[in-house]
Amino acid sequence: MSLKSVIIDQARKAREAALKLALLSSKDKNSALKAMASALIKSRAGIIRENARDIKAASQAGLPQAMIDRLLLNEARIGQMADGILDIAALPDPVGQLLEVRKRPNGLRIEKVCVPLGVVAIIYESRPNVTSDCAALCLKSGNAAVLKGGKEAIYSNREIYKVLRSALTDTPVPIEALQFIGSVERAAVCELLKLDQQVDLVVPRGGEGLIRFVAENSTIPVVKHYKGVCHIYVAEKADLSMAADICFNAKVQRPGVCNAMEKMLVDEKIAEKFLPGMIARFQSAGVEIRGDEHVCRMIKGLKKAVARDWQEEYLDLVLAVKVVRGVEEAIDHINTFGSRHSDAIVTRDRRQAEAFLKGVDSACVYVNASTRFTDGNEFGLGAEVGISTDKLHVRGPMGLAGLTTYKYQVYGSGQIRV
Amino acid sequence: MSLKSVIIDQARKAREAALKLALLSSKDKNSALKAMASALIKSRAGIIRENARDIKAASQAGLPQAMIDRLLLNEARIGQMADGILDIAALPDPVGQLLEVRKRPNGLRIEKVCVPLGVVAIIYESRPNVTSDCAALCLKSGNAAVLKGGKEAIYSNREIYKVLRSALTDTPVPIEALQFIGSVERAAVCELLKLDQQVDLVVPRGGEGLIRFVAENSTIPVVKHYKGVCHIYVAEKADLSMAADICFNAKVQRPGVCNAMEKMLVDEKIAEKFLPGMIARFQSAGVEIRGDEHVCRMIKGLKKAVARDWQEEYLDLVLAVKVVRGVEEAIDHINTFGSRHSDAIVTRDRRQAEAFLKGVDSACVYVNASTRFTDGNEFGLGAEVGISTDKLHVRGPMGLAGLTTYKYQVYGSGQIRV
Repeated sequence: MSLKSVIIDQARKAREAALKLALLSSKDKNSALKAMASALIKSRAGIIRENARDIKAASQAGLPQAMIDRLLLNEARIGQMADGILDIAALPDPVGQLLEVRKRPNGLRIEKVCVPLGVVAIIYESRPNVTSDCAALCLKSGNAAVLKGGKEAIYSNREIYKVLRSALTDTPVPIEALQFIGSVERAAVCELLKLDQQVDLVVPRGGEGLIRFVAENSTIPVVKHYKGVCHIYVAEKADLSMAADICFNAKVQRPGVCNAMEKMLVDEKIAEKFLPGMIARFQSAGVEIRGDEHVCRMIKGLKKAVARDWQEEYLDLVLAVKVVRGVEEAIDHINTFGSRHSDAIVTRDRRQAEAFLKGVDSACVYVNASTRFTDGNEFGLGAEVGISTDKLHVRGPMGLAGLTTYKYQVYGSGQIRV
Repeated sequence: MSLKSVIIDQARKAREAALKLALLSSKDKNSALKAMASALIKSRAGIIRENARDIKAASQAGLPQAMIDRLLLNEARIGQMADGILDIAALPDPVGQLLEVRKRPNGLRIEKVCVPLGVVAIIYESRPNVTSDCAALCLKSGNAAVLKGGKEAIYSNREIYKVLRSALTDTPVPIEALQFIGSVERAAVCELLKLDQQVDLVVPRGGEGLIRFVAENSTIPVVKHYKGVCHIYVAEKADLSMAADICFNAKVQRPGVCNAMEKMLVDEKIAEKFLPGMIARFQSAGVEIRGDEHVCRMIKGLKKAVARDWQEEYLDLVLAVKVVRGVEEAIDHINTFGSRHSDAIVTRDRRQAEAFLKGVDSACVYVNASTRFTDGNEFGLGAEVGISTDKLHVRGPMGLAGLTTYKYQVYGSGQIRV
């Protein structure tokens, strides 16, 4: 079979399986998840053996050590993957939830009920634990999953998929509800992205290049998890010691993630008081500061920010700092250069806080807290597929509910339209 | 300015206006809607004069009389447009609604709040009242609107737009919140569909060709309102007299709309009893019947359905009829050939009804009622942009809530991530 027919065949089988999966109870789905978790533990040796092939290839290709570390699987990490599946099994099942009931004057009873999307394709790069996380999230929410991992983890992903799929054999979940695109060619992604009759949603997880490619080539609806160019605005009325702790946490605690602060905006009225100490603290933690003109005039020896600094997601110990004249300019800057992910204001002024919360057009807007809390578990939503920077369907942490839709179930007694 | 720069400029102005519009109260938005309604009434003469140019062009181009009728505006129809705007003003405003509150163990208070999408583009064909309906729905839900009508109604649409926009002058709604693409070139649509940085949603309203074109060329998220290939399945345990009335209503009451029945599925166990009378009743109302083999064997002289009959939306007094062996085959047929719009079962058997409601993968699934109720007003949701056959973001009638999204507003007291 050609690559194209293999993928069409997989998508069709996934759609058939999805129609069955949608009818299963939470108990049935959870029993399948538990079987998947046990199978991972039982099959650790085989997974580690296949992972070694990816690690070897990565070393030979001269990939950076940080990336090789992310690829590596050992007993502890496989244990975490299994625990992750059990955590998802323990989450409440959104499917079947009655979202709204309307009783109409003509006697029709209209129920709006949560149902699975159907078939969800996830196209991801890098870490192999995504294979088990996403499989579990999709099955728990009643969706068939079509998974396509990156070539760096191809052996690990394929083995994890085999283990998870064969674990479904004696469960109520049809094994065809899990599909894995074995080809590492980008052509495989292109074929997949055309199957809008079979696949209901595609989620790209990875770098900007992958996400753009998927968004531009897909006729299937896409939920994008773009970059996080997160801002913190330290306002005139901020508690400056709180502001310093929040900014330090948001930049330094884990700089490589999408909810880390990338830009710090400081009100001109407190800049002289706040910035010298704050910047010294950042520098002693190894953070490279890129200042606007005002900041560079105030503190000598800093690198000057250039235009692209205001839009770039560094994912590293680098921070652009700008002085602004009040909350309006802060909001305007964030709406112009931000990525609609997570932004915060530090202030004791309630009216300014409200203006910021309402005016900033981002998924998560904070008052007096670190942007690092944008996360499914921190929000109390459970494990997530990612953080959506889109506005349609799901915004911010995309947990189980983000993998569902609804239908209207209408109960009549012979009503006709007059 | 080139076509491209004109459209980019309009989209930018719409985005700036949207950020202001999002902050307005319901009262402010309603006052603008009322001004728009009054302006339509006051400017009737001018609108009718411009409409005459469209009507003349349509006659000269030899458009069918039914289409010319749809284009025609007179005092009564303009009055209905104004009333439509006032009805929208009277609807509850979804914006600002608190959808969920979570208090986290670390003291963070997370509010999920309904907010406008931002900028909504609507690309439509045919009837000029869409210009005022969509403008009103967008503004009421706090969105800027970029409207692009069809060339048949270009003079009418342009005049209505001018009237509505100038009505905004003395209201709190910025006039730039309404934009109208004056070019009738498809190239204008192409330029618009690339502006994913400015436009948050595009809704194509029109024939399948327009919708496919938009879906395939847009990098902006699209909500599609595809065809309605609606089924009614008359089950073994149906009240046959109720079934006959429901089917007749769903086919005949208004055959040209998307929620009209296009296919009737009849259980083999009651086919002999039900079909002869039903088909005679349809035929006496001028409905052309296209039967499957079973039906054509049973009733002589019927046209035989061919493969494409099962997927076609006739929008006319034509009906394809098929005999099926039970609810499973009915569900399977609908999920294979339907358009995920509206489908019904007529039965007194509760278990079969539940199986149908759960198993049919459509936006609206009915028991013992006509599919003709799929409509924003009939559902109690108010006026609608259309009926979404997509699963993401909004499914079924797309009213004001379908034009909104949410954001998380997080209140802290210095929380940092550990």
